[in-house]
Amino acid sequence: MKEEIKPIKTKDEPNLIPHLTIDCVVFGFHDSNLKILLLKWKNTKGWSLPGSVVMQEESIDEAAKRILKERTGLKDIFLRQFHTFGEVKRYDLERHRNLLSHLIERNLWYERAISIGYYALVDYKSVFPNPDEFTDDCEWWDLHDLPTLLFDHKQILDKAHHSLRLELNFQPIGYNLLPKKFTMPELQRLYEAILQKKIDPRNFQKKILKTGVVTRLDEVKKGVAHRAPFLYSFDCKKYQQVLEDGGLFFT
Amino acid sequence: MKEEIKPIKTKDEPNLIPHLTIDCVVFGFHDSNLKILLLKWKNTKGWSLPGSVVMQEESIDEAAKRILKERTGLKDIFLRQFHTFGEVKRYDLERHRNLLSHLIERNLWYERAISIGYYALVDYKSVFPNPDEFTDDCEWWDLHDLPTLLFDHKQILDKAHHSLRLELNFQPIGYNLLPKKFTMPELQRLYEAILQKKIDPRNFQKKILKTGVVTRLDEVKKGVAHRAPFLYSFDCKKYQQVLEDGGLFFT
Repeated sequence: MKEEIKPIKTKDEPNLIPHLTIDCVVFGFHDSNLKILLLKWKNTKGWSLPGSVVMQEESIDEAAKRILKERTGLKDIFLRQFHTFGEVKRYDLERHRNLLSHLIERNLWYERAISIGYYALVDYKSVFPNPDEFTDDCEWWDLHDLPTLLFDHKQILDKAHHSLRLELNFQPIGYNLLPKKFTMPELQRLYEAILQKKIDPRNFQKKILKTGVVTRLDEVKKGVAHRAPFLYSFDCKKYQQVLEDGGLFFT
Repeated sequence: MKEEIKPIKTKDEPNLIPHLTIDCVVFGFHDSNLKILLLKWKNTKGWSLPGSVVMQEESIDEAAKRILKERTGLKDIFLRQFHTFGEVKRYDLERHRNLLSHLIERNLWYERAISIGYYALVDYKSVFPNPDEFTDDCEWWDLHDLPTLLFDHKQILDKAHHSLRLELNFQPIGYNLLPKKFTMPELQRLYEAILQKKIDPRNFQKKILKTGVVTRLDEVKKGVAHRAPFLYSFDCKKYQQVLEDGGLFFT
């Protein structure tokens, strides 16, 4: 059942924090590729990240959750703040004026807004995103085959990807992007997609197992003809320790 | 020569971005200890981080630089955004009401403000911080021996320290906190101070040298009686590569 969509807030709303927005970069993983969820604005060819304003009575974390739910239908997913974007001119307003005119008229648009970026990690197979009242499409795109993005959303996406790459050093990124049980080649393909480089398999397996964040199970992958590979899972307790201790390099 | 201190902005100022502030955590390193620069509020025993508001005509990075200069006299130092703090009630307003009454009266205080946190890394020996018009002291404190901090500044400081720890995995943190040439034990003591744990020296030296971010010079430390240790320096180009490639663990 699709929930009712709430009307968007105008700038005059006293409960809204002026000049502040949140933009979300939603990552999924499928067929060895990193995917991004984008919204297509109604009556244009422009695509953007799901984003909106922050209310006085909600924390920014709560706002990010609400915005993602309102704009894409996604809920109960891993969300993490990664960077705040605060340039004076974040994008060329003139180039976007036509697109924004109806928003500017309805008092829905700030010439300057600081945007807090959140990234979300979702299991690609288990989500069914929905467009909202401003958009007529909500679709997964391959990171290597993106449409032209509105505003500074390409920069926001790039920064999110960069953060994800660096946070592989201490966050259980794979835990949210892979099935609960996975093979070592599956884990490696995910890391390669995020790092955008080939990794030497033997070295990778040795290093990852040495840290203790991944545990080999007494189980092999089913449906594989011969030499079925072992399955592994993340040890979240050990990962918590790594996060507190200073990352994988210092284990 | 001390520069003139500009008057603080009131909430009614149209050029100010309402409900938004910046707080800076300034780290230094001295005698194997991590140090923090704190300001003491006039006529109280309360200490706080240097912080202030953001203006419409400046980026948040420019604002952070300006604030640090206005409030402590520090300039041209390494500054990095690490987290934005956006809880609805970030601290107990009632407990702080006496302290804040003159600011609330002068319309200088928001009940709710979102604060963008920046950390700064400075060479402890080369800075001479100055207090501003709101504070009567500006002092270095040992991370293990802090006074009681006002507002949620202890949480902001802890988060900055946590970020610093994790960023050791990919940022040339030591480059800004050590002299240009250093010995391996000096580097290790810095890492131990940030990570707050002992590191095995042989393992540390081997791992760090393997990444290539530190280079051994054809020079030994002077003034050491016998078995003078070799000097090292950071290879910033290599560090840039590590940052782009995904951190030390993935080198």
